[in-house]
Amino acid sequence: MVNIAVMGYGTVGSGVVEVMNTNHDKIASSAAQQIKVKYILDVRDFSASPYKELFIKDFEIIENDPDIKIVVETIGGTGIAQEFTRRCLLAGKSVVTSNKELVANHGHELITLAKERNLNYLFEASVGGGIPILRPISQCLAANEINEIYGILNGTTNYILTRMIKNGVSMEEALAEAKYKGYAEKDPKDDIEGYDTCRKICILSDLSFRRHIYPSQVPTKGISQVEARDVSLLAASGDRIKLVARAVRTGESSVAVYVEPHVVLKDNLLANVEDVFNCIMVRGNAIGDTMFYGKGAGKLPTASAVVADVIDASKHINARKYVDWSAGGPDAVTDSALLENRMYIRAAISPERVRELFGCIKVIDVNDTQTAFMTEEVLDLYELREKIGDTRVFALYRVLD
Amino acid sequence: MVNIAVMGYGTVGSGVVEVMNTNHDKIASSAAQQIKVKYILDVRDFSASPYKELFIKDFEIIENDPDIKIVVETIGGTGIAQEFTRRCLLAGKSVVTSNKELVANHGHELITLAKERNLNYLFEASVGGGIPILRPISQCLAANEINEIYGILNGTTNYILTRMIKNGVSMEEALAEAKYKGYAEKDPKDDIEGYDTCRKICILSDLSFRRHIYPSQVPTKGISQVEARDVSLLAASGDRIKLVARAVRTGESSVAVYVEPHVVLKDNLLANVEDVFNCIMVRGNAIGDTMFYGKGAGKLPTASAVVADVIDASKHINARKYVDWSAGGPDAVTDSALLENRMYIRAAISPERVRELFGCIKVIDVNDTQTAFMTEEVLDLYELREKIGDTRVFALYRVLD
Repeated sequence: MVNIAVMGYGTVGSGVVEVMNTNHDKIASSAAQQIKVKYILDVRDFSASPYKELFIKDFEIIENDPDIKIVVETIGGTGIAQEFTRRCLLAGKSVVTSNKELVANHGHELITLAKERNLNYLFEASVGGGIPILRPISQCLAANEINEIYGILNGTTNYILTRMIKNGVSMEEALAEAKYKGYAEKDPKDDIEGYDTCRKICILSDLSFRRHIYPSQVPTKGISQVEARDVSLLAASGDRIKLVARAVRTGESSVAVYVEPHVVLKDNLLANVEDVFNCIMVRGNAIGDTMFYGKGAGKLPTASAVVADVIDASKHINARKYVDWSAGGPDAVTDSALLENRMYIRAAISPERVRELFGCIKVIDVNDTQTAFMTEEVLDLYELREKIGDTRVFALYRVLD
Repeated sequence: MVNIAVMGYGTVGSGVVEVMNTNHDKIASSAAQQIKVKYILDVRDFSASPYKELFIKDFEIIENDPDIKIVVETIGGTGIAQEFTRRCLLAGKSVVTSNKELVANHGHELITLAKERNLNYLFEASVGGGIPILRPISQCLAANEINEIYGILNGTTNYILTRMIKNGVSMEEALAEAKYKGYAEKDPKDDIEGYDTCRKICILSDLSFRRHIYPSQVPTKGISQVEARDVSLLAASGDRIKLVARAVRTGESSVAVYVEPHVVLKDNLLANVEDVFNCIMVRGNAIGDTMFYGKGAGKLPTASAVVADVIDASKHINARKYVDWSAGGPDAVTDSALLENRMYIRAAISPERVRELFGCIKVIDVNDTQTAFMTEEVLDLYELREKIGDTRVFALYRVLD
């Protein structure tokens, strides 16, 4: 039998306890032994909970109990969560988490600490909620050099963009609806401005390209500037605006990585990823393109990924899993503005002038004052700016085909 | 360092040697040690190969070399491949394979043999080519009770159906094109009649529902009866005919499983899976729906999955991976005709009579002699037959929405 502790009884933490309970037999059979929640750490009062006997408020009980081999950290953030994670590892306990902010900012040092002590620090649930993605990248694609990753990594913004497309409403209206349905937090800034997506592409890049990428190194643009007008102009031909994170290998140990809304053409599978679903494309040099799809958030999907890591850690109590990457640095990233794409532009310019500048284009909409179009040629952002000069640009998106 | 042997230097076997060579550094780093191909077993002559020194014709050299810890079986079939696999396991060597026929028919006994000897028998490449699917099911979804799996598991038939949809050609013409392009074998029966798909859904079921399902227990219908007429009638509204394998949990340790062409409605992601791509949907009780997509066949994708298993086996030389399921039996499967779906039917019947029988329907096409329609209600095949009586039916497909 393995005893575990759960730190933080919020959405994911309570989901972990629920999944451990509901799927008890399946979990025991997968782990080839019983796994028992011995403590739940939370400062709040849960005296009405069916698990009330398990609640403690003092972290040191976990830290000092040699019976506890695995600790689940579902506190979130980089404050106390980081301190407790460090102390658990120093006390000889493996740690499993869904805390993307902590992994994106301090993953390398925490993994190094775990490695020195022959322990595991696992975080499958930090990207894509329940979608299996980190383990497939580090294990199933272990024989591949990964050259590119991109995807829809945030359910809240994808829900909002889906509403804008289907109902023709504005960003503000769609956001209000998302809040009403519980898909967006009261303060939705982390989602809307792309910060949540940014942390996830950092973790995917860490694992795929094997150097630590910090969120501060990733140019990040959210969806707050997306206009209903462009959404509906594109929707007419089935194309979609989606918030996409993308990381492209640019050297032996460097990557260009950024987060921003893209135009996704209708034949790309990502165009049909709707509502709160996520989808991640991984391109390897042997496997080609492979894609992973599912609910990117939510209590039970995320909790089931945490529990899968607990099962894995329970099978490797005395053996390290090989999740690992090197330290970061300024040379780990190269300028993402140099990545070339076809471009969607809506600007105060005539179609004739656009053709002079860009040659073959697809005109999407024209009126007296502006033209919306897609270039046929691919170009980087510097080339684009040079061509477009001081023309007034209302919308500009890279195109994913 | 770990020494391995590759048995069978066909498409996949030669791909394994190629991937081991091309991605040597990445593989060594993932495995945290060097992996070296010491022997290649093949009865044919490869004296012009750059690896000519590695070729042997005598299996006993591998069997008796204590240096060889892992053997790759890419011979295929259930004859000599089965004998060599057994003998490798008996000689204390882990075995990695892409041989779906062997796993589908004898997986349980070979895993049991491996288990008794604390060895691994791994076969990620047997389903979905390079798509990570078996490891995600057995590890990442380990905390889920899986309730349903369905998918497009055969690239050849999907290529043929895609051609029929896009070019409006007949099955025979599309097959000829597939052969010309190397996507179909000279004798394409295993693909066209659904046998290959059947083996794969058996392996997926084994892992997900944890009892051995034999191919002979799975009602299997291929695409040879699919008519261009239905394909194009449905294509008008974006719906597709796809060869789908499906397994649905029907009890604690039983499953209804079958292979047949389905109508896939246009909003299902499977509808956009084209050409030689595969896509597998897994429904868990905590995670909900999750989907895996990529190239389901091909030398390098499949080889990269084999090599990932080799890496995994090399990290677990003295520890078993927990791939496991129970013995099969007649009670492992229940009657798949009892599964309910909406149905697509083209029959010698009038729309009025159809409405009398089925209530609300979607009429797809009508002419003097027949009606093509989709039922709104879901019903099983017995209910359907009772309603339709002795009406002449030209086409009948379950609908996946």
